[in-house]
Amino acid sequence: MKRNLVIAQSGGPSMVINQSLAGAVLAAKGSREIGRILGARHGIAGILGNDYADLRRLSPARLEAVAATPSSALGSVRRKPSPEDCRAIFEAFRKLDVGWFFYIGGNDSADAACIVSEAAEAEGYPLRAFHIPKTIDNDLRSCDHTPGYGSAAKFVAMAFSGDDLDNRALGGVKIDIVMGRDAGFLTAASALARVRPDDGPHLIYLPERPFSLEKFAADVQSAMKKFGRCVVAVSEGIRDASGTPVAARFAAGEKDSHGNLQLSGTGALGDMLAKYLKDKTGIKRVRADTFGYLQRSFPGIASATDSAEAREAGAAAVRFALAGEPNGTVAMVRLPGKKYRIEFKRAAFSEAAKTARSMPPAFIARNGHDVTPAFVEYARPLVGPLPPVALI
Amino acid sequence: MKRNLVIAQSGGPSMVINQSLAGAVLAAKGSREIGRILGARHGIAGILGNDYADLRRLSPARLEAVAATPSSALGSVRRKPSPEDCRAIFEAFRKLDVGWFFYIGGNDSADAACIVSEAAEAEGYPLRAFHIPKTIDNDLRSCDHTPGYGSAAKFVAMAFSGDDLDNRALGGVKIDIVMGRDAGFLTAASALARVRPDDGPHLIYLPERPFSLEKFAADVQSAMKKFGRCVVAVSEGIRDASGTPVAARFAAGEKDSHGNLQLSGTGALGDMLAKYLKDKTGIKRVRADTFGYLQRSFPGIASATDSAEAREAGAAAVRFALAGEPNGTVAMVRLPGKKYRIEFKRAAFSEAAKTARSMPPAFIARNGHDVTPAFVEYARPLVGPLPPVALI
Repeated sequence: MKRNLVIAQSGGPSMVINQSLAGAVLAAKGSREIGRILGARHGIAGILGNDYADLRRLSPARLEAVAATPSSALGSVRRKPSPEDCRAIFEAFRKLDVGWFFYIGGNDSADAACIVSEAAEAEGYPLRAFHIPKTIDNDLRSCDHTPGYGSAAKFVAMAFSGDDLDNRALGGVKIDIVMGRDAGFLTAASALARVRPDDGPHLIYLPERPFSLEKFAADVQSAMKKFGRCVVAVSEGIRDASGTPVAARFAAGEKDSHGNLQLSGTGALGDMLAKYLKDKTGIKRVRADTFGYLQRSFPGIASATDSAEAREAGAAAVRFALAGEPNGTVAMVRLPGKKYRIEFKRAAFSEAAKTARSMPPAFIARNGHDVTPAFVEYARPLVGPLPPVALI
Repeated sequence: MKRNLVIAQSGGPSMVINQSLAGAVLAAKGSREIGRILGARHGIAGILGNDYADLRRLSPARLEAVAATPSSALGSVRRKPSPEDCRAIFEAFRKLDVGWFFYIGGNDSADAACIVSEAAEAEGYPLRAFHIPKTIDNDLRSCDHTPGYGSAAKFVAMAFSGDDLDNRALGGVKIDIVMGRDAGFLTAASALARVRPDDGPHLIYLPERPFSLEKFAADVQSAMKKFGRCVVAVSEGIRDASGTPVAARFAAGEKDSHGNLQLSGTGALGDMLAKYLKDKTGIKRVRADTFGYLQRSFPGIASATDSAEAREAGAAAVRFALAGEPNGTVAMVRLPGKKYRIEFKRAAFSEAAKTARSMPPAFIARNGHDVTPAFVEYARPLVGPLPPVALI
């Protein structure tokens, strides 16, 4: 007996989140157990507001065009479903005879999918619910790496490749602030821009290591001595020794419904670090850029590997649900061996929800302001080749 | 009798300034009148410091790789040559028997080349000197458009295309600050991102029209009513009714040797506008990004037309010098007709130096916060096709 499917997107957009949508839709189209394929607009808000797109009716060409488009084509939301939300969701699902539910997003979205799945069980509403992983932060414990990360990392690596050349031309210090609230993976990807021994970034600061302004100034002065210039990658999430985000001193302090502090969409951290450095060291030319939302939604440069894996993650979730596996998330496991290979497995929601993953110590250099070759080896296949650059 | 050639780069980098270098080198290689081809590192600083790269010895493959690399491969400088500098330059040129001098850059660089050329004439030093146009600001009076603009404009259009999709997903107001000290051309290029009638940017603020915070807030509220969201393109150079740059209230006030205020490399303007808007209108989600140096040095996305024209501008300067045309700059004239065609002509330094060009009134919408279809028609062929995007 056919039941209908609802799929939605949640949290921050990525360059390949629509690949996951396309992968799930194509897999669902191939099943006799699935009737209508409905895309809820703006996550659970669309379910509560009965706002759906009929995805089965999208032509294959249109679906491919959507898949290649950055940002969340169904719209997104940041909302943790309350018990009342859940009751309203099942009421809506009953009316539409929804038996399949897929939620694409990060750990907050895995949490939301888990809440809906558990509430369904408690209410006795039969629902196959799966979370499909997505986050540019790369912080889901269930995944070797998360769909969305490879493309954002590619943007960051390309940006540092170009910005290092810019810094070569005019000198001084350049600070670039990279996204990543708790995990330094995206900031670490700046290291992929290095080809020659004196290429920047010359310093990389991650949220996983306590940040001290004094050490920062000393590190920059030492790099200036060595290279005559300095490019610095700084995570927006850097914290001081007490664990307080450095940005918290300057940001408006806005928080979302999951209790997360707003770090992106402001240049305050970069400006503060640049001012501190100028005042402290007397270095004349200090500039700061904050990459901002370009990192997650820039069109036309997505990593080919990331695109393919994001699509497969969406398809795998539908396959797992159809195969009768317990509700949960899609885990991505890297297989051992020289050749890069990924296996998709079903995992419990708890593997992706709530607590996030940080950069493992093996990826962080001992000096606390760089990554290790092990990280570069880990990240390179996810990002793929970068545009070649040549010096005179 | 052969004399040697010195070429250098000056001012802000661009994605295609090395195409101009390659074009000039290749043209010079084909002449029997030119001996050594020397690239001075960091503009006139390299001449004064006797720091040269031998460009004739670069292999053709290496020269092509350099041409495709963003930023100034010879390094850059912001320095207006003083009378003493000029004397030192001719002393250096005499030692090396330099008879050909090419300087790639914007209006400050045209000014510098003009100063050197006039000082050579006054001193009786025989020198064929040409300026090769480059600026992402597109503000040289001598050019229909300037090499470097098309690629920076492409970055801006791509960024707005992606950021508009990001704003569709999560809503609210997004402010993006775009480079351009006096001219709004680069900010205006954000309009190329629009495909559908409700695509952003919904508001475009240029330095050519007085900026008022009150009108800005009212414009945003009106766009929010119409679109339920709002993407805003703001030039870093916007001024109030008195002509004072709005950013000047917040920037450190650093100035270069040509007396230009530092506007880039800080997120202060965007943050200030976002804060004002939140306070004034009560709109909850307001974010600001400042594109910064990514606009001029991002690798791998240069406009094909811009790349070809930048190369031709370099070659044309050498051809004009060899043909015995008076010292000067390379002008770019758009030929009338439906098909886009550009002609390269010799022009006086004064056509490119000192006073800059602004957006003509025909390119600015009457409401003061948008561009006209005439601008889009003007800019489209310079930028070329953008990555396609599709909505559900």
